[in-house]
Amino acid sequence: MEGDGIPVITLTTDFGLEDPYVGIMKGVILNIHRDCRIVDITHGIASQDILAGALALSSSFRFFPKGTIHVAVVDPGVGSSRRPLLVQTEDYFFVGPDNGLLSPALEQEKDVRIYHLIQDRFFLKQLSRTFHGRDIFAPVAGWLSQGTPPSEFGPRIQDLLTLKLPLPKRMGHHVLGTILRIDKFGNLITNLTTKDFPEPVGRFVLRIAGHEIRQHLSSYAESETKTPFTIFGSSGYLEISVHFGSAAIDLKVSGREEFELERIE
Amino acid sequence: MEGDGIPVITLTTDFGLEDPYVGIMKGVILNIHRDCRIVDITHGIASQDILAGALALSSSFRFFPKGTIHVAVVDPGVGSSRRPLLVQTEDYFFVGPDNGLLSPALEQEKDVRIYHLIQDRFFLKQLSRTFHGRDIFAPVAGWLSQGTPPSEFGPRIQDLLTLKLPLPKRMGHHVLGTILRIDKFGNLITNLTTKDFPEPVGRFVLRIAGHEIRQHLSSYAESETKTPFTIFGSSGYLEISVHFGSAAIDLKVSGREEFELERIE
Amino acid sequence: MEGDGIPVITLTTDFGLEDPYVGIMKGVILNIHRDCRIVDITHGIASQDILAGALALSSSFRFFPKGTIHVAVVDPGVGSSRRPLLVQTEDYFFVGPDNGLLSPALEQEKDVRIYHLIQDRFFLKQLSRTFHGRDIFAPVAGWLSQGTPPSEFGPRIQDLLTLKLPLPKRMGHHVLGTILRIDKFGNLITNLTTKDFPEPVGRFVLRIAGHEIRQHLSSYAESETKTPFTIFGSSGYLEISVHFGSAAIDLKVSGREEFELERIE
Repeated sequence: MEGDGIPVITLTTDFGLEDPYVGIMKGVILNIHRDCRIVDITHGIASQDILAGALALSSSFRFFPKGTIHVAVVDPGVGSSRRPLLVQTEDYFFVGPDNGLLSPALEQEKDVRIYHLIQDRFFLKQLSRTFHGRDIFAPVAGWLSQGTPPSEFGPRIQDLLTLKLPLPKRMGHHVLGTILRIDKFGNLITNLTTKDFPEPVGRFVLRIAGHEIRQHLSSYAESETKTPFTIFGSSGYLEISVHFGSAAIDLKVSGREEFELERIE
Repeated sequence: MEGDGIPVITLTTDFGLEDPYVGIMKGVILNIHRDCRIVDITHGIASQDILAGALALSSSFRFFPKGTIHVAVVDPGVGSSRRPLLVQTEDYFFVGPDNGLLSPALEQEKDVRIYHLIQDRFFLKQLSRTFHGRDIFAPVAGWLSQGTPPSEFGPRIQDLLTLKLPLPKRMGHHVLGTILRIDKFGNLITNLTTKDFPEPVGRFVLRIAGHEIRQHLSSYAESETKTPFTIFGSSGYLEISVHFGSAAIDLKVSGREEFELERIE
Repeated sequence: MEGDGIPVITLTTDFGLEDPYVGIMKGVILNIHRDCRIVDITHGIASQDILAGALALSSSFRFFPKGTIHVAVVDPGVGSSRRPLLVQTEDYFFVGPDNGLLSPALEQEKDVRIYHLIQDRFFLKQLSRTFHGRDIFAPVAGWLSQGTPPSEFGPRIQDLLTLKLPLPKRMGHHVLGTILRIDKFGNLITNLTTKDFPEPVGRFVLRIAGHEIRQHLSSYAESETKTPFTIFGSSGYLEISVHFGSAAIDLKVSGREEFELERIE
């Protein structure tokens, strides 16, 4: 079940689906190796939002078969001196720019080996300075899926740029948290986990954008009103939700806002 | 051509494509069975709009090969006591929540056998109460595509929740109809079929949102003006359209509005 | 690597991803030939915008393996007398309506053979007059991918409708250009290539929407301000960009606007 069979390549980008950029990347991969499976994680990352791309990748990659090649391209430094990377871990491959995009995923992995992609015989011949997703990352994923050993793409390096995720700050009975992202349902996904907010919870007040939330539930369906509540979401983070509604709209939160959680003992 | 070959799994959800939820479901499926083909019907269903999901599924599933596994997740009751289902019919499999989402499709099918998904050895190990698309429906589809017999997933049950589609009401020369959905082109798709509005049509007036429509065409290209007209769309329903324009915008219709059709003999 | 292996079919349409139309086309293809790979180029073409569809296709098709079947459907004349076509070139197949959509791609190809799709045994049985993507183009692509020779689908014809792309006009030191499209990043993609604007460039002024642009860069990352600049994009066209921003928003350009480029020697 794992490690053999048709190779899987995932794509995570900020390219959107209106332009042909994602289709072009898939064409490049299939032109090198037709017998692989390409799966979109998402292309809806806000333009140049490296943190959002890193969160999408780091919350998804472990659900794919061992041996999967994860290609991620949120790349404001394309064409500059930022390095293109291939990273091999115990279970997966990662391909993308050295700008922190891969680091939250790699922190969860063992046996991390980083390669600097410099062997341009694996790149498209006419290398642009604006679309390395097409010219470098897609073809490298194609050749890798065909069995080319990682070491052939370039030398091993020891370091990569790491992304600083906003971490909760604890001050006595208070925790200062941040909204990491807002999903399609209007759920506000925070940076708090069960370590910061153990279940079953006691009394608390969560203050955000002028509102106070005092109810914690364990499924959306337990809510029979439009009152916002907290809930642990599917990736283990505390979320702020409204059932049959949008917490983002109701609480007027649209970005990475901070909030305060106070435990009442 | 049918019933054998690579198994096909379709996905219909309200998850959108901005978040990694759909990609995660695909990872879960491929981790169980890599040799299947996953096809998106749509992930653009309005959040929690079971009727919209049911219409998308029921108008699409028959175009897929026999044996296709149709997974549908529009699931406001996730984590509650609503049952997760697997349904086998003469030609297809359906996997999704017992909330009416599957019922309009199943009404078109023969030999309907319903199974209550309770055998949690087929679920992801850490079962959340917020994302059964990932934890139950995707893995069940994966194991099913690998050949696990339906009866292994749980006991047969006899009933499921059925969705009441808004039906046209006839009153003499009048028919009261409802807009079921609005498509990307701004076409208003009604709940009237040729039974309610036989072709070739005689004279009629359709009254909607303060407008009167009196023209019926059989192709968009017959219209040379921006006047709204009626037309039978590709799924057999009467639609209200504007060529090179949007009936939704021009008539200011954005939801499931009612309208009146009067036959003039 | 080329010409054999699993056949690839691409789709380029204005159907969007909210409705089930694209999923239905994929079902029809897989029902005829399950062992092919279907790749989306884009479904985000503005409704009925043949030029936008033609540009997406013509900038993408060459990145796919030889033998790929490119299906394109932006089809305001569906159901009228406009002809459905299959075109075979030295390296690819193209399937779509005879309305200019295919012509910019075909102009790049050799050995162009055009067939008029009239053999309705390859169409869906119940042919609608509103959705030939489902009823004609998808099934023809399916049968073609299975090995049916092009000549079986209908007679060869000699002409097709060609699309007039807006071309730059030169007047001494001035070039009058047009914005062809705006991408997801807000880049304004012009119809000028290196022939009109050779690199390395001398001094110039580009006037658009009341703004003047005087800086040309070769990568986005060279820009450290929010000042708009010109750059050659990944498909060889001159683009107007703002790093970490949107030229479309900053310059208030939303359509196919004209601009003037003046060379200063």
